[in-house]
Amino acid sequence: MSGLDRLLRPRSVAVIGASADPTKTTGRPVGYLQRHGFGGAIWPVNPRVAEIGGLRCYPDVASLPDAPDVAIVLLGAERAGDAVRDLSARGAAAAVVLAGGFAETGGDGGDRQARLKEAAGSMRLLGPNTIGLVNLADRIVLSASGALEVEDLAAGRISLVSQSGGILGAVLSRGAAQGIGFAQLVATGNEADIDVADVVDHLAGDDSTDVIALYIEGVRRPDAFRAAACKAAAAGKRLVAYKVGRSEAGAQAAISHTGALSGADRLYDALFRQLGIIRAERFSDLLDVASALATRRLVRGKRVAVLTSTGGAGALLADNFGLAGFELPPPDAATAERLAALTGEVAVANPLDLTLAGLKSEVMNGAIAALLESPTYDALAVVVGSSALAQPRLAADAIAAGQAISDKPVIAYLSPHAPAIGAALQRQGIPAVSAPEAAATMLAALVPPAPLAAPATAPEAPVDLPSGPLDEAESKALFARFGVTPVREVACATPEEAAAAAATLGETVVLKALSRHLAHKSDVGGVRVGVKPADVAAEGAAMIARVTAATGRAPEGLLVQEQLRGGVEVILGLQRDPHLGTAILLGMGGVAAEVFHDTALRLLPIDRAEAESMLAELRGATLLQGFRGRPKADVASLIDTVLAFARMGEALDNRLVTAEINPVFVMPEGQGARAADALAVLT
Amino acid sequence: MSGLDRLLRPRSVAVIGASADPTKTTGRPVGYLQRHGFGGAIWPVNPRVAEIGGLRCYPDVASLPDAPDVAIVLLGAERAGDAVRDLSARGAAAAVVLAGGFAETGGDGGDRQARLKEAAGSMRLLGPNTIGLVNLADRIVLSASGALEVEDLAAGRISLVSQSGGILGAVLSRGAAQGIGFAQLVATGNEADIDVADVVDHLAGDDSTDVIALYIEGVRRPDAFRAAACKAAAAGKRLVAYKVGRSEAGAQAAISHTGALSGADRLYDALFRQLGIIRAERFSDLLDVASALATRRLVRGKRVAVLTSTGGAGALLADNFGLAGFELPPPDAATAERLAALTGEVAVANPLDLTLAGLKSEVMNGAIAALLESPTYDALAVVVGSSALAQPRLAADAIAAGQAISDKPVIAYLSPHAPAIGAALQRQGIPAVSAPEAAATMLAALVPPAPLAAPATAPEAPVDLPSGPLDEAESKALFARFGVTPVREVACATPEEAAAAAATLGETVVLKALSRHLAHKSDVGGVRVGVKPADVAAEGAAMIARVTAATGRAPEGLLVQEQLRGGVEVILGLQRDPHLGTAILLGMGGVAAEVFHDTALRLLPIDRAEAESMLAELRGATLLQGFRGRPKADVASLIDTVLAFARMGEALDNRLVTAEINPVFVMPEGQGARAADALAVLT
Repeated sequence: MSGLDRLLRPRSVAVIGASADPTKTTGRPVGYLQRHGFGGAIWPVNPRVAEIGGLRCYPDVASLPDAPDVAIVLLGAERAGDAVRDLSARGAAAAVVLAGGFAETGGDGGDRQARLKEAAGSMRLLGPNTIGLVNLADRIVLSASGALEVEDLAAGRISLVSQSGGILGAVLSRGAAQGIGFAQLVATGNEADIDVADVVDHLAGDDSTDVIALYIEGVRRPDAFRAAACKAAAAGKRLVAYKVGRSEAGAQAAISHTGALSGADRLYDALFRQLGIIRAERFSDLLDVASALATRRLVRGKRVAVLTSTGGAGALLADNFGLAGFELPPPDAATAERLAALTGEVAVANPLDLTLAGLKSEVMNGAIAALLESPTYDALAVVVGSSALAQPRLAADAIAAGQAISDKPVIAYLSPHAPAIGAALQRQGIPAVSAPEAAATMLAALVPPAPLAAPATAPEAPVDLPSGPLDEAESKALFARFGVTPVREVACATPEEAAAAAATLGETVVLKALSRHLAHKSDVGGVRVGVKPADVAAEGAAMIARVTAATGRAPEGLLVQEQLRGGVEVILGLQRDPHLGTAILLGMGGVAAEVFHDTALRLLPIDRAEAESMLAELRGATLLQGFRGRPKADVASLIDTVLAFARMGEALDNRLVTAEINPVFVMPEGQGARAADALAVLT
Repeated sequence: MSGLDRLLRPRSVAVIGASADPTKTTGRPVGYLQRHGFGGAIWPVNPRVAEIGGLRCYPDVASLPDAPDVAIVLLGAERAGDAVRDLSARGAAAAVVLAGGFAETGGDGGDRQARLKEAAGSMRLLGPNTIGLVNLADRIVLSASGALEVEDLAAGRISLVSQSGGILGAVLSRGAAQGIGFAQLVATGNEADIDVADVVDHLAGDDSTDVIALYIEGVRRPDAFRAAACKAAAAGKRLVAYKVGRSEAGAQAAISHTGALSGADRLYDALFRQLGIIRAERFSDLLDVASALATRRLVRGKRVAVLTSTGGAGALLADNFGLAGFELPPPDAATAERLAALTGEVAVANPLDLTLAGLKSEVMNGAIAALLESPTYDALAVVVGSSALAQPRLAADAIAAGQAISDKPVIAYLSPHAPAIGAALQRQGIPAVSAPEAAATMLAALVPPAPLAAPATAPEAPVDLPSGPLDEAESKALFARFGVTPVREVACATPEEAAAAAATLGETVVLKALSRHLAHKSDVGGVRVGVKPADVAAEGAAMIARVTAATGRAPEGLLVQEQLRGGVEVILGLQRDPHLGTAILLGMGGVAAEVFHDTALRLLPIDRAEAESMLAELRGATLLQGFRGRPKADVASLIDTVLAFARMGEALDNRLVTAEINPVFVMPEGQGARAADALAVLT
């Protein structure tokens, strides 16, 4: 068994610093182990106590009867290091260190954590600054979380990996109240050794887990995380993640909490998306979506039936399904007939409001069956109304019976406060929620996941790369080596050369100053559009003078370009994130990107489908599709350009600092896409 | 007393069609009246029963001992009409009709509802298709809602007006579970007589109500609703509304539920906003925001302190406050010193994580006091962590004590499932929520409300108005009468006249076909830009031929305009909604409005501050403020133009069908804003 196997399924647990006072945090773990049904050996360690919870207490690690599989270390930050060293020496497989006061505090804490890690040697370490772990599948509780005061913790098929111990407790306690069971819950805390990627990798092979829910402040090893997520997906497991740090205040709080290094939050959207991980927008979505995924059902279309006995709740659900892009078609003729026969006078519509007829179980059962068996619907949402408070089994039993006859998703919406009904439904595998918005979010999460792109081999970097900032012509020459087509242009040393070149490039040209030191040429008069070839020599001389005066440095030369007309402008960018890798950005040009932030972002590598999904994400993509009578743009060439640019980003790897094409002119269909301006900085 | 007073505070209640079987819906109201403490006379009416719940049962309305203040009619749709007629004849003040099967079903149901209304005569009518009303301030329950099975319904300062009975039950039951009390809850159902506006008007003068929460499917009488909302605001009461119908599916469901006519949903955003009504985005926000408003506290700035004993929840809150536009500054030096003295080694930051020190009540109390008394903070959010499950009073008592020393808002966030702690806090007037997003939403709702604009007298409509569709020149002439400045232009009958006019308008001009029948001139070649005056005669003749060929009808003439350069394009529109009145739309021009929907919408009338708020709402407004080195645009003139256009909308009132200026050129500062294209349709 690996260290992680023994950590999650130990046969013996030492509790270092256990207290005989069960009201103290250090008094909890022994009691929790006993109360929640751990069947292995429990060895409390405390030199000042002879017995804890009826168990013999050992004075120190050395006196333990054997090397424990796991030790929970309840000592403070200063003394935890010594205990860890002793445990490692004794041959323990893993230690869980609860104390805070390490890397999350900055300064000295980082050194203390490094010493702790060093003390652990080859022993695996969970924490420090963790609340521990809970294996409900095997009823093994290695935690001090107050949430474990709950008596009846149900086992289920959802596992949680949380970088915060408090969040683990919150999710566990909320889940228990809702009737949602868990398999494994692991708080990784400061991740001195075991991190989120390790645990996901372990859970990918864990038979008790179908769904992995993640609470993330920042992923420390993105490549390992990617590999683990892919392994889990390949094993048929689904992932959902809540990540804090979407605002500056949240990012700062996360750093000072567990010291997690966080890349730009938007890159996590890309990371999760590209790994098929659903990102929970709201904190409650983490548990709601996980419970929906745990049904292992999929919604194979957009058509939802809503069944209710109270019109207002039906309208609420309908509205929220509609906002989430679902449709509520009326029943087909055969289903309508079946429903009318059941309900008598009730109007047949969607939402289907049974009103008081819904209080009869045969009507409720029949309506659920009719809607689930109808080819018109891909999913069913059932409202549990106030009348159910008097007859709590009615709706729950009917929904459970209906669910059994179909593999379509069924979601229950609790209109009044009805936690007992909700928990009864959840225990029968039917997601039940009190928020109409959540019903829509959960159903949206059941759309079949796209297959993950096969990992591609990164192209090799060319050997003869330049370095530092490149000028526009050099940038385009670099881009062209990977397949990005530039506009026709000639780099010239003098205004006279420029004039000669201009004569070959059309009736008017674009004239630019060429400089490696000028990121914003137009700000210093370094760009002129619509210049006639006859005027190029004079304008070129004037431009050199202007730029020299403005910057104190003469440009290296002039660039003369054909002047394109009739294209749609888009922008393409590559940015190296020191933490998460290289990101590619596609946006509509001009104010669309700058003012409306109409951009799509992915992490490299991307394949063609991903490039197409980026374009589809842009609201302004409509401008490429023959907007207001303009010709359709050459979208295929644009996608080729995006992929070429992405390949370059992969090949350059960490040599790349930044690269940008602004704009790419996407010409009418069949006429290609061309880079009109470009910059790049290499290391 | 008015009919509504007697309806909400009756001294005698007749229950028509009461059943002696308490498990039936018709068996509930008598029991609920008794159980929840009604002190007046209860008169069950049922010819087949002698006694119900120990009360004498009357065979019919005529045999009642006196005219009841209120009658609850539990009969089906067919028989309810007769009962209502009898009650009106007997002199009852009001009847509550629960049955469905009226206007909400369409067809015959509408006629049945008209007969019901007619039968009521001068007696007030609540419903039909309602669950009734609940007056918890006076413990009077006139309802059959299963939510009333709850025993301990607390009174509070929030009243609810709901067009759906099921939603009333849901809100009542959810509120009771959360410890949130209510004053009055009224379900208006189909609103054959009493509607949302009536009840809001009544609650505006109700001493038991501080906050009015609304569940709306559609407002039937917008003017009465406006007046009632203004009356409530003037009385210092706050309003929050949840409205369904944001999606097509939801709008359809609402119509078939209570038959409410719903204007375009976006207009409700404008309506609520202009009346100072907070729109609840999520259904749970309705209750959450109401409970925050019920504290009558205001947040006077953007700076929030977060106090926690569990880092993860602190980060969650910080992130969500940040996303909502709040800031989390670190404590000032004096506060930091005070906190350090309290907590010893704990790092002083925001969120302030007390970790285990937070389990000591003197530390918790001291930290709350220090943060609330700090000039650095405008509000405080306190996390109730898992450790509170073992000591539930600790956090609740400390928060309640802290709240008493300050008038700043205090919000509690429950990290684990802790409904008892939440309810205890709510009962002490401290909003407590389980969703970190809700904490931010609630705090945002406590921003001091802007004073409502004083109702202005609508300008009188000019007497000599044209009618039907107007051509561009006629439209601009109309707009100019209200103060909208057009570009310099001349309407001409012939190409030759146009050529003569062009000579006075600059080096190049814009030439357009003038036609009342041509909404999209450019689609048929009816617009040419950059025409030299010398070419105007020939181009004008060609244009007339083109437009005639394309449309089968000769244009009335030609319009020659100066060609403006250097302006920023915006669009202005007026649209008459048959239900909610005239709306004004301001948007950035071109693709900004069409692709990015960067528009702001208000209902008329608007004042200058409102016009400025429209502009501030546009993401593209940055283009007017000297974007990328361009000159600042003449925003003051743009606002003048918006107000002139709005005045026209008011003056034209229902004579207006639609009017649009697309674009307005907003020139550099001091150079004005000018209408470059225009259309209008009057009745």
